[in-house]
Amino acid sequence: MKPAIVMKFGGTSVADPEKIQRAAERAIALKRGGRSIVVVVSAPGKMTDELLQLARQITPSAQGRELDALVSTGETISISLFAMALAARGCPAISLTGPQAGVEADDNHTRSTITRIRPARILRELKAGKVVVVAGFQARNPKGEITTLGRGGSDLSAVAVAAALKAERCEIYTDVKGVYTADPRLVSQARLIKRVSYEEMLELSAAGAQVMLSRSIEVAKRYGVTIHVRSSFHPSSGTRIESLSEEKMEEAHVSSLALDKSEIRLSIVGVPDRPGVAAKVLAKLADAGIPVDLIVQSAPTTAGVNDISFMTPRAHAEDAKKALASLTLKLGARGVDLQDRVVKVTAVGTGFRRHPRIAAAMFATLAKARINIQMISTSDLRVSCVIDRAHGEKALRLLHAAFGLGKKRR
Amino acid sequence: MKPAIVMKFGGTSVADPEKIQRAAERAIALKRGGRSIVVVVSAPGKMTDELLQLARQITPSAQGRELDALVSTGETISISLFAMALAARGCPAISLTGPQAGVEADDNHTRSTITRIRPARILRELKAGKVVVVAGFQARNPKGEITTLGRGGSDLSAVAVAAALKAERCEIYTDVKGVYTADPRLVSQARLIKRVSYEEMLELSAAGAQVMLSRSIEVAKRYGVTIHVRSSFHPSSGTRIESLSEEKMEEAHVSSLALDKSEIRLSIVGVPDRPGVAAKVLAKLADAGIPVDLIVQSAPTTAGVNDISFMTPRAHAEDAKKALASLTLKLGARGVDLQDRVVKVTAVGTGFRRHPRIAAAMFATLAKARINIQMISTSDLRVSCVIDRAHGEKALRLLHAAFGLGKKRR
Repeated sequence: MKPAIVMKFGGTSVADPEKIQRAAERAIALKRGGRSIVVVVSAPGKMTDELLQLARQITPSAQGRELDALVSTGETISISLFAMALAARGCPAISLTGPQAGVEADDNHTRSTITRIRPARILRELKAGKVVVVAGFQARNPKGEITTLGRGGSDLSAVAVAAALKAERCEIYTDVKGVYTADPRLVSQARLIKRVSYEEMLELSAAGAQVMLSRSIEVAKRYGVTIHVRSSFHPSSGTRIESLSEEKMEEAHVSSLALDKSEIRLSIVGVPDRPGVAAKVLAKLADAGIPVDLIVQSAPTTAGVNDISFMTPRAHAEDAKKALASLTLKLGARGVDLQDRVVKVTAVGTGFRRHPRIAAAMFATLAKARINIQMISTSDLRVSCVIDRAHGEKALRLLHAAFGLGKKRR
Repeated sequence: MKPAIVMKFGGTSVADPEKIQRAAERAIALKRGGRSIVVVVSAPGKMTDELLQLARQITPSAQGRELDALVSTGETISISLFAMALAARGCPAISLTGPQAGVEADDNHTRSTITRIRPARILRELKAGKVVVVAGFQARNPKGEITTLGRGGSDLSAVAVAAALKAERCEIYTDVKGVYTADPRLVSQARLIKRVSYEEMLELSAAGAQVMLSRSIEVAKRYGVTIHVRSSFHPSSGTRIESLSEEKMEEAHVSSLALDKSEIRLSIVGVPDRPGVAAKVLAKLADAGIPVDLIVQSAPTTAGVNDISFMTPRAHAEDAKKALASLTLKLGARGVDLQDRVVKVTAVGTGFRRHPRIAAAMFATLAKARINIQMISTSDLRVSCVIDRAHGEKALRLLHAAFGLGKKRR
């Protein structure tokens, strides 16, 4: 048997019977090429949100077990309809829930982590010549009950199944054509990227690109699963996410830009410059369950105090502010400052450390446009600048032009 | 532990979050009385129909396994929402799918028969003080996969679970107040019946009463489960379906009337009067999967031929006609006659055989109103007359008055 191909269809791709029919035809076309096909699907359209809305009408504090029993029905509806569509076209098919497909996860209801895949049932059905339609997002927990994988769970299911099957690739069908050099709604010159490395994709995801969540890309990277992001609705060839050759890795380049409007900046200001202060701040935030991105500690002033700033999702702003406020007295800091008129613009690529001209070009471009940079964070794979929200889209367009991203390359 | 009480809520009783809240409050009220409570629920409102409609948009010929995976999601949504509603009111609760609840059935997808209930999990959760919310309609087949129980499946689940738990009673909450002496929409004097025997209820169900299907009543009768039919929306005390005492059984009485408009009459006419002809006709119909009710063979004419007539559901009319047409030549019959302007009016009660005056009163009442009786069928528990459709409701009202059913009795 040739290596299988995993095709994952997101909610918009299975939103109604007509779209399911179209997706089923794509799967059949690939199977006709002599390949074993596993299809992983999300719940139809907005169904998960509708089910959560029903739960909220019952109670704002539903338990995880019952919420999972509820929301997992969306994917079960998708798999059975999808298998019917395949069978109606003469293509042998079988639907499997996450537990039936051997997807096992931990006991953290509504945000479980996959612990292993037992692919025996999938392999048996593939061997029998069937297209296997697996419910994404669902898994069996150690108690043998259904649990769900949280945000981006269906992508994670697809990548994990592809890894377990040693599949040739995992095709992610979505409502965009692939990964762009920048959001095409904001930058008209934005260009589809044909290939991108796992590392760059991880940075892009962290920088706010919506295509895929980092948890799935991490699993793909660990197991060497080639991901192919494609549109359900356009014949475009999409973007391959894979290990790039050493040679490519050596070339310094910017592959894509991202603009993240979802975070706010928090600062604890006038902190006496003593060892261990930053650690205390971070421990406090970790205890409060607050995600932290882009931490910057300013150089101490002559008065021996400095500021510690970081970015956090808007939803956590108030909790984070409270957590820090309780620290200010203890640390002898001056206070807490919350700035929500900020955006983060990020250039993602490779070789930034060896080639500081990329960061330099970025700062120069912003300076020339009189855009003030509030925070900077760099790694070998990215440069992020926090700037005033009013300049976000303009900065994105200027940088896209400055790095020549609109021109065809690899 | 006192014997448990099983409460079954139908689709209209869990159609939206507000109705689920109300049903949950009923369960809690009963639990406060110190009882162990098992709740069995159907899919919300019209959901099963909507899911079937989705399947039809995909294909008119879906396989049973995939259809069951699809339609069973409705009950899963109900149980999780119901358990949330209980928990939100401080009542410990757990939802169980049919397979989780130990409901086992055969492999006939979409119309499985329950083979056994393994109540260990339900008992464990009851012992832990929880209200156990079980999905009706769903079961686990011998392959370990989900199957469904067909029409009336949720009632069947409730009665079977009540039998397995040796529950004190099985309360069936529905959108009517209970069993009436006749359909109250047709007969204004119709009265709620407080108690009715399994046997009478079986006859009423066969005669077209919509309250419960006979399969659930049969199981209740076999295991001695007392059924209590009640309204979800009115405080009325409803109807108890149970074994009646010997004494009651001896009294001849009419308890209820039913009018069935769902059947047509088919006759194979001018059949030579030879032994075995009726058997051949019935075998042919059985082979074609056609349900047959109320078979009447006329006395042979002097020419040595007779007619064989029976009633069958309208949906099977054309198939039945075809099956019989193919027999006419072989039997030397004159032809097939289909009459669809007919209704069946049935009086159900006890002791009809020993007390022929009941049948006589029925015929006399119809004769007096110049309503012609086309077919008659009697048993110890019922008298059915097929009459012209135009007279159906009038006959029902006349008989209701003639038997004095509007007056209060047991």
